[in-house]
Amino acid sequence: MREVPANKAVSRRFPERLFLLGSVDENGKRNVMTIGWCMLTSVDPFEVAVSVCKDRHSHLLISRSREFTLAFPTGEMKEQVLYCGSHSGRDVDKLTKSGLKWKPGEKVKSPLVDGCNANLECKVIGEMDTGSHTIFVGEIVAAYIADRAQKGLYCLDGRRYGSI
Amino acid sequence: MREVPANKAVSRRFPERLFLLGSVDENGKRNVMTIGWCMLTSVDPFEVAVSVCKDRHSHLLISRSREFTLAFPTGEMKEQVLYCGSHSGRDVDKLTKSGLKWKPGEKVKSPLVDGCNANLECKVIGEMDTGSHTIFVGEIVAAYIADRAQKGLYCLDGRRYGSI
Repeated sequence: MREVPANKAVSRRFPERLFLLGSVDENGKRNVMTIGWCMLTSVDPFEVAVSVCKDRHSHLLISRSREFTLAFPTGEMKEQVLYCGSHSGRDVDKLTKSGLKWKPGEKVKSPLVDGCNANLECKVIGEMDTGSHTIFVGEIVAAYIADRAQKGLYCLDGRRYGSI
Repeated sequence: MREVPANKAVSRRFPERLFLLGSVDENGKRNVMTIGWCMLTSVDPFEVAVSVCKDRHSHLLISRSREFTLAFPTGEMKEQVLYCGSHSGRDVDKLTKSGLKWKPGEKVKSPLVDGCNANLECKVIGEMDTGSHTIFVGEIVAAYIADRAQKGLYCLDGRRYGSI
């Protein structure tokens, strides 16, 4: 093995699973953001951790609302997920413009995205400042699956999206 | 979509990338554990977050030493990674018994694993209690890659390991 800068080494993690992080502002306007930095972090109750850059619109929304949703998109949703990963909710209504179909959560106000393999409703139970990002830990308060599981969507190399 | 218990919904995240989490005890004895709950969490500096169950031997070691390594195993290392994911460092010397080859890190004492696509040396800069687990956040203080990238190893369905 040879020593390299950290960014070069971490690029060896691809393909990396992609998720849609849903949030809501104080007026009830929903947003959705494509993320890869996400992991489970507890059982009983199940909790999920997401890492969100501080300059993102979703960061502001989750910080205020203390809730989020997390959807597991399918390979067929590549174009919509790419749109949500390359635009900001400050500028556009991504849920409308991307063509995604959604409905509000039952126990949180953030959006559940139709057609995804799974959707989780989460309430923030803790957060941690990690420098450029904040880790938000959410307890899963409701969970849903599509009847038929399809191949998931991955970031293949830092730019291209696809299923594997 | 239909509502299900959280454990059923989160199983839709598979295939999930697998990593080897390296640690060291106060006598210099190294350990390695298979994990899937891992994500990047910051750039400049690059940081990685791992979620470790509190009853694991690795949890004790990382809590005390404030350091860890993270290796990205290849599909060819399936059997060794399966061994490390199904035995405890309390009972056996997994680095020897698994057949893995390793050397100590340069800036930390935890082990670097030969043949992996990448290896990261990390110093713990923060932690967060999430219930059954602790999230350890480590700054990447050194990073390495193998000359040739190979297919990574994934947990395919919660039990079986394989490359995709």
